[in-house]
Amino acid sequence: MNTLEAINARTSYRGKYTDDKVPKEHLQAIMEAGLAAPSGCNKQTTYLIAVDDSSILKKLHEVIQPPIGDTAPAMICVLTKRIAAYRDKCFATQDYAAAIENMLLAIVELGYQSCWIEGHITDEDRIGYQMARILGVPDEYELVCFLPVGKAEEELKKVFKQPFEKRAWFNGFQNK
Amino acid sequence: MNTLEAINARTSYRGKYTDDKVPKEHLQAIMEAGLAAPSGCNKQTTYLIAVDDSSILKKLHEVIQPPIGDTAPAMICVLTKRIAAYRDKCFATQDYAAAIENMLLAIVELGYQSCWIEGHITDEDRIGYQMARILGVPDEYELVCFLPVGKAEEELKKVFKQPFEKRAWFNGFQNK
Repeated sequence: MNTLEAINARTSYRGKYTDDKVPKEHLQAIMEAGLAAPSGCNKQTTYLIAVDDSSILKKLHEVIQPPIGDTAPAMICVLTKRIAAYRDKCFATQDYAAAIENMLLAIVELGYQSCWIEGHITDEDRIGYQMARILGVPDEYELVCFLPVGKAEEELKKVFKQPFEKRAWFNGFQNK
Repeated sequence: MNTLEAINARTSYRGKYTDDKVPKEHLQAIMEAGLAAPSGCNKQTTYLIAVDDSSILKKLHEVIQPPIGDTAPAMICVLTKRIAAYRDKCFATQDYAAAIENMLLAIVELGYQSCWIEGHITDEDRIGYQMARILGVPDEYELVCFLPVGKAEEELKKVFKQPFEKRAWFNGFQNK
């Protein structure tokens, strides 16, 4: 698959996963793809934890309510350190988002599916914080997202997107 | 090039560009890759303007001081609309960062180079705002980043990154 094909094949998968395990070398390759993303002033504010131990996965999914991605045989948790990169500016959100997008593409390239789960775990009930406690993550890191990883059991669905000409133009705003 | 190769080949290029033009269909393909990125609650908050008209490029580079990417024959400007996606949460930064990463990979796939230029134009001197005015962008959109696009004239350099085991672990924090 070339990059453009992977970019177009990627979708947010919210269905069930098969029982097929994800080999450790694939989880490693996915995380390497994440860490290869650029970061503001090269501050490398993103850290990752892959989880494929079924007892730890079970503990994590106990706090992820309502459940999502709980049938996946693995997940990758995304941690950020919100430090200033340039004067008082922090680019940690941009940094981890770029890392997540790289990982989502690597996941598709390797034949798996995933979904960017962030809003659900960074809300008032602080599920991400509870997940971080289970994984022994110190307080200076924030667990902001997790990506289930596994083979899709159900059909993939594409969300509706606005047509190109409503969102992209040449040489001026709304100029075709 | 497969996706993992493109992810590893991508680097932040700050050198000079050759005079080779970027065909419109390549700019379109790069922008399509950007728009294919996921967005929080599918709000599609990212908008794009490719610029390859030399007189408009000249006007834009007059306000980008100190200069960067000014020898590139094209650029893609990234606009965001900071609207709430979920309760009072806005994921516009994550949305445009994922779109930018997709575009950087598409740029590499198509044989070009680029660099994510954000901090430089979103500072107190509000270069991004001045660029937006030149492009006729209404005030509800914020111009947060631009990507020069062109063929590299100079050698590519890779930045130093921390080793994998300092940033990624399995089944627990700092667990190898």
